[in-house]
Amino acid sequence: MPPFRPSYRVVRALELPQSYAPRTILRSSTRRCMWGGPLPKQKVDPLKEWREPKPSKWPNRFRLLMLPFIGAIIYSMVTDDSVKAESPTIAEKDALTKRENGVTEQSPMRLRMEAFVQQHQKQIVSELEKVDGNKFQVDTWQRPEGGGGITCVLQDGDVFEKGGVNTSVVYGRLPRAAIQKMRVNHKALDPDVDSLEFFAAGLSLVLHPHNPNAPTVHLNYRYFETADELGNTTAWWYGGGCDLTPCYLFDEDAIHFHHAIKGACDKHDKGYYPRFKQWCDDYFNNRHRGETRGVGGIFFDDLDETEKDQEQLFSFVQDCLAAFLPSYLPIINKRKDMPFTEAQKQWQQIRRGRYVEFNLVHDRGTAFGLNTPGARVESILMSLPLTARWQYMHVPEKGSREERLLEVLRSPREWV
Amino acid sequence: MPPFRPSYRVVRALELPQSYAPRTILRSSTRRCMWGGPLPKQKVDPLKEWREPKPSKWPNRFRLLMLPFIGAIIYSMVTDDSVKAESPTIAEKDALTKRENGVTEQSPMRLRMEAFVQQHQKQIVSELEKVDGNKFQVDTWQRPEGGGGITCVLQDGDVFEKGGVNTSVVYGRLPRAAIQKMRVNHKALDPDVDSLEFFAAGLSLVLHPHNPNAPTVHLNYRYFETADELGNTTAWWYGGGCDLTPCYLFDEDAIHFHHAIKGACDKHDKGYYPRFKQWCDDYFNNRHRGETRGVGGIFFDDLDETEKDQEQLFSFVQDCLAAFLPSYLPIINKRKDMPFTEAQKQWQQIRRGRYVEFNLVHDRGTAFGLNTPGARVESILMSLPLTARWQYMHVPEKGSREERLLEVLRSPREWV
Repeated sequence: MPPFRPSYRVVRALELPQSYAPRTILRSSTRRCMWGGPLPKQKVDPLKEWREPKPSKWPNRFRLLMLPFIGAIIYSMVTDDSVKAESPTIAEKDALTKRENGVTEQSPMRLRMEAFVQQHQKQIVSELEKVDGNKFQVDTWQRPEGGGGITCVLQDGDVFEKGGVNTSVVYGRLPRAAIQKMRVNHKALDPDVDSLEFFAAGLSLVLHPHNPNAPTVHLNYRYFETADELGNTTAWWYGGGCDLTPCYLFDEDAIHFHHAIKGACDKHDKGYYPRFKQWCDDYFNNRHRGETRGVGGIFFDDLDETEKDQEQLFSFVQDCLAAFLPSYLPIINKRKDMPFTEAQKQWQQIRRGRYVEFNLVHDRGTAFGLNTPGARVESILMSLPLTARWQYMHVPEKGSREERLLEVLRSPREWV
Repeated sequence: MPPFRPSYRVVRALELPQSYAPRTILRSSTRRCMWGGPLPKQKVDPLKEWREPKPSKWPNRFRLLMLPFIGAIIYSMVTDDSVKAESPTIAEKDALTKRENGVTEQSPMRLRMEAFVQQHQKQIVSELEKVDGNKFQVDTWQRPEGGGGITCVLQDGDVFEKGGVNTSVVYGRLPRAAIQKMRVNHKALDPDVDSLEFFAAGLSLVLHPHNPNAPTVHLNYRYFETADELGNTTAWWYGGGCDLTPCYLFDEDAIHFHHAIKGACDKHDKGYYPRFKQWCDDYFNNRHRGETRGVGGIFFDDLDETEKDQEQLFSFVQDCLAAFLPSYLPIINKRKDMPFTEAQKQWQQIRRGRYVEFNLVHDRGTAFGLNTPGARVESILMSLPLTARWQYMHVPEKGSREERLLEVLRSPREWV
């Protein structure tokens, strides 16, 4: 593998095979513009290796995906490149462990989380491809410092206007300033060290369907760990959640979605769902509009040993992620082929505009990522819809379905 | 006049006559959705009064427009409502002066600036209506505390996809914290007072044409003043600028635009254009993309007595604003009817997305406004285009016009 260089990543992007070219005339002209010339005709499926990985080699083929929650991490590394530990890094230790033993239930949580999110990414991509009838474009890349990422994008599909399913695994060092900030939520962190090694792994997903009756969905689950000079874990925590953003509200969809998530939560703690549902309504909130982004779901962060032990929390996150496909597939399958009018499509475009507003104005991870020098902007902004609209003084008709959606977004409901 | 109430503003918006209804089927269905039912058929031009104002009455009919740069001011007022001066406020003094003497060259700068921006708003709106062939929707409203605003919007016109020309005049009080911040640039402000009365007046304009060959243009000029308990001016300054954002670059357009602005600058100070051109390139910069928003223009702020005397700076701002129509009309007239392809329209949509990114991520005024409780969001976000697009990993074709634009945005040029 060549070393990580931005220019190389662009070149790789240019080599995408014809099978990924869009199908309409409009799309094909855009495509030519996008990729810089006629596309090479290849019969080989470039995803084949990724789809059928050889366990001993696959960890070396990932490229880094800098998703919003990774922005802070990358920044830390950028600002503290000079700090080096003398003993082997956890990245080196983990690489050795994987080579020698593979990943088992006895492996460090870092390796188990990495294997877990990558396995689920494949399953989710595979199921979504069945729904859409088209393949995701897969960009994988690797960081020489350790770790990497896989970005899977489906753009202008038959069902999804834009969809991304991403995993990332990052090893690096946190400078003192970042450690101080993290101590607010993680008292176990030593305030007197100059830097700490860290690890982060996560899966992120955003799907924007074409049909205005089909809701947008977002999901993100992540694990974070810090280690001292000897490679001993000093702090760890989980974060994440998922939420549903309809343009036209079908109560039964919101109920089904929340019911599925609540089921995963209740298996672990009856207090989780109400607590994390409230956290989600509070976080995914376009405060300047006085509206939540959508009908919510769950959101949590900084879940560490003060909450539950690591195995219990890992099991909780596993159940949350496992609940995604059952929570969303029945909805998208029911809505994707419903008839709709031009006016409904326009309302969807206005709601897409609100989605953009939340992500660019309020989402802390996105803002931080975009203000981080050298961030991979295309990965950060992959969460934005393909198209959006801002219409001056748009006010839905009295008693309309559009108005009803706004009412629900202005005072979030209890769905289960 | 009824007192200012948000609900009243909405009702007024609902009363727009049929002549403002869009013309295509698509638009008309949206319109119905927008305004909540069939539109009343009126023969009376609701803008007639505004278009032919009676000088003694018109200052009382303005509604407040909270543009981004006003956001901070409103916030100050919201957070410091309890502070009251015992002597007449400058708002009260100004109202009296206008009633008794009208506005002359001997009037306080506040009244001269107000009259100046409102006069130019009418002229600009009138000229743009000739270009487009359609009328602007005019929303005027007034603040009981003093001052008001006029929002003129043209949406889905024949030439302009979306355009806004706005003036606002605001009187209020600045709390101590805001004064401390302003002292960084205005040492004359007394650091020991608990609050200060202030005045702000300005004109803002954004035009997004339909034709991808025709550039978007933005302009904003403003005057700010603070006064002590006796109504004596303690500090004042001017700010503003204008900039051009093409999707397809015609060098001659950028040269013409910059030449017109440089002419206005050079009349006052040969150092202004190079200094304010650089300031513009630095400010209107999508740093996360490594691109300026467009091909620039000028930008300046905090120009006070340490720069030049007040008459000289007012004259400079007057010339800058007067240069707008000659700087932009020849460009829009040359480009508005040029043929274009679907692919070019899509590139425009992608560039519109970048415009949204700048305004929502980097523009300090917009961000502050949106985070200010009670802000008039529709006025703040009027600067956003009607439609925008985010396409994953879009890379223009080698040697294309799209690629050339990016090259220029990545290393800004000297145009004159």
